[in-house]
Amino acid sequence: MEGKKGKRGKKGKRDLYRAPLVPLVLLGLKGHRASLEYPAFLGAMLWGLQDPQDPLGHKALQAHKAQQPAVVHLQGQETTIQVREDLSEGILRNWKMVSIHHRVFKMHSRSGELEVLLDGVYFIYSQVYYLNFTDIASYEVMVDSNPFLRCTCSLETGQRKFNTCYTAGVSLLRAGQRISIRIVYEDTLISMTNHTTFLGSVRLGEAPSAGQN
Amino acid sequence: MEGKKGKRGKKGKRDLYRAPLVPLVLLGLKGHRASLEYPAFLGAMLWGLQDPQDPLGHKALQAHKAQQPAVVHLQGQETTIQVREDLSEGILRNWKMVSIHHRVFKMHSRSGELEVLLDGVYFIYSQVYYLNFTDIASYEVMVDSNPFLRCTCSLETGQRKFNTCYTAGVSLLRAGQRISIRIVYEDTLISMTNHTTFLGSVRLGEAPSAGQN
Amino acid sequence: MEGKKGKRGKKGKRDLYRAPLVPLVLLGLKGHRASLEYPAFLGAMLWGLQDPQDPLGHKALQAHKAQQPAVVHLQGQETTIQVREDLSEGILRNWKMVSIHHRVFKMHSRSGELEVLLDGVYFIYSQVYYLNFTDIASYEVMVDSNPFLRCTCSLETGQRKFNTCYTAGVSLLRAGQRISIRIVYEDTLISMTNHTTFLGSVRLGEAPSAGQN
Repeated sequence: MEGKKGKRGKKGKRDLYRAPLVPLVLLGLKGHRASLEYPAFLGAMLWGLQDPQDPLGHKALQAHKAQQPAVVHLQGQETTIQVREDLSEGILRNWKMVSIHHRVFKMHSRSGELEVLLDGVYFIYSQVYYLNFTDIASYEVMVDSNPFLRCTCSLETGQRKFNTCYTAGVSLLRAGQRISIRIVYEDTLISMTNHTTFLGSVRLGEAPSAGQN
Repeated sequence: MEGKKGKRGKKGKRDLYRAPLVPLVLLGLKGHRASLEYPAFLGAMLWGLQDPQDPLGHKALQAHKAQQPAVVHLQGQETTIQVREDLSEGILRNWKMVSIHHRVFKMHSRSGELEVLLDGVYFIYSQVYYLNFTDIASYEVMVDSNPFLRCTCSLETGQRKFNTCYTAGVSLLRAGQRISIRIVYEDTLISMTNHTTFLGSVRLGEAPSAGQN
Repeated sequence: MEGKKGKRGKKGKRDLYRAPLVPLVLLGLKGHRASLEYPAFLGAMLWGLQDPQDPLGHKALQAHKAQQPAVVHLQGQETTIQVREDLSEGILRNWKMVSIHHRVFKMHSRSGELEVLLDGVYFIYSQVYYLNFTDIASYEVMVDSNPFLRCTCSLETGQRKFNTCYTAGVSLLRAGQRISIRIVYEDTLISMTNHTTFLGSVRLGEAPSAGQN
């Protein structure tokens, strides 16, 4: 059963190379058994935008392409993070690219930052899984060095706790701006299991023309 | 079983060619006073996609139709669920279709699964209202038999608790894949009141061309 | 200052009819140091829809405009709210318009209601930051006088707590309907800091033709 799924996935991926537009880069998540199933399939979600050399011709094709949304979904890499010891300035870095639209998003693995390559209106969403915290746990969705959204949990002290914290919002971003997740308190323990800690974005469309000079 | 799913998916797509344009079916939720107000209005949200046999003619109409997003929003049916006794494998089933785009989504009421009929990039969101739980409560948004997102709350033991847990994310789905909500722990008590427990999705657009043969 | 904002809003709308396409009005949030950075940039997100007097001409330009999504993002105004004393009927009012698409959304500052000016399918999201509450804290996303979504937290009594509660969903809205946030319990204390308490929406597209007589 899983095998069948796998085949369908592969066939689909091969077809991508024949397609004229929508260039595709395969992530090639390897080695992880889990990622050979569903996430591997998702791994095929790396594709491009329209050809900027032919911006007005082939309108039908364009319309088709226009319907291919630019999205990204990053997942935790199955590690446990002790903020104080493992992170510089609290920025989460251990992301695995499950899907990414390479013409619109660029992952900076070392810094943990997700750069947008096009001006636009973006929906940004994220979730962090707090494994244990003494009093309060909080993270911020940052745009460059400014907080955009904050997600906070507070619980009884002295007890082992498990809580996911989800937040999301819409923001105008300019090309070159970078999204990241900053854990606010140093004594927080984060579980970066793939279904519980993630960061994603959808480019909803063009920004107003202000900066489109 | 997987084979069947595949076929059903294709059949669904073929059906699209026969239908005229944007057909509309009213849900007609009746009998519930509450649903005569806002939800009944939402009940009108059942409509179709564009006719692929006329892909380039009637551009204005097409443009209009293209702007009709494919969405679904399911709400709990005002029941209280004791997972151990009421659910098979923890899958929530008691959904009421508040809005559903019938050409893109198909509800399987008996199993609680929401099937997508078209390949595409989907935003999936959900919320569950935990009424009471001893230690930890958790649910997973499943795609077929694989977890995609997980939402977790943990609280003091021995006390009556009330907590909603929301999560959401973007995923590539192929026609025939099914979304469901699985409660992880058997001792969880769920309140499926309509504004607190829900499952929804938005088809953001085309998938990369893999499956568009 | 509020008055100024109101005037600017009206001027903005009138300008839209004169401007060619995609007219842009800069908010120019002034005086606040913080808003000179990121929020001031977001302040540019006030723009129009397509010109209804030329609905079919200039298709390429139209396609461009069609890609400009109608969004709104409101943030708390850095105040702390004691529901019982500060709010009438629990409706949050202290919103600052970080971004708003003036042809689609209209803020009613006095009542705290966000009116939609066009029929359509809307994604509505919100988050509230509960600063302290005795037992349970809950808010509802209202559409007119009907609850659409509810977000609930419950914690130990007698302790200072900090929790953000996020919820979101998709709904069909008709022109004239109003979105608001209603705090359910009077003894709740809300922190309307800008990154923790917010309300936003994205118009996903046209409503089905049912009510488009």
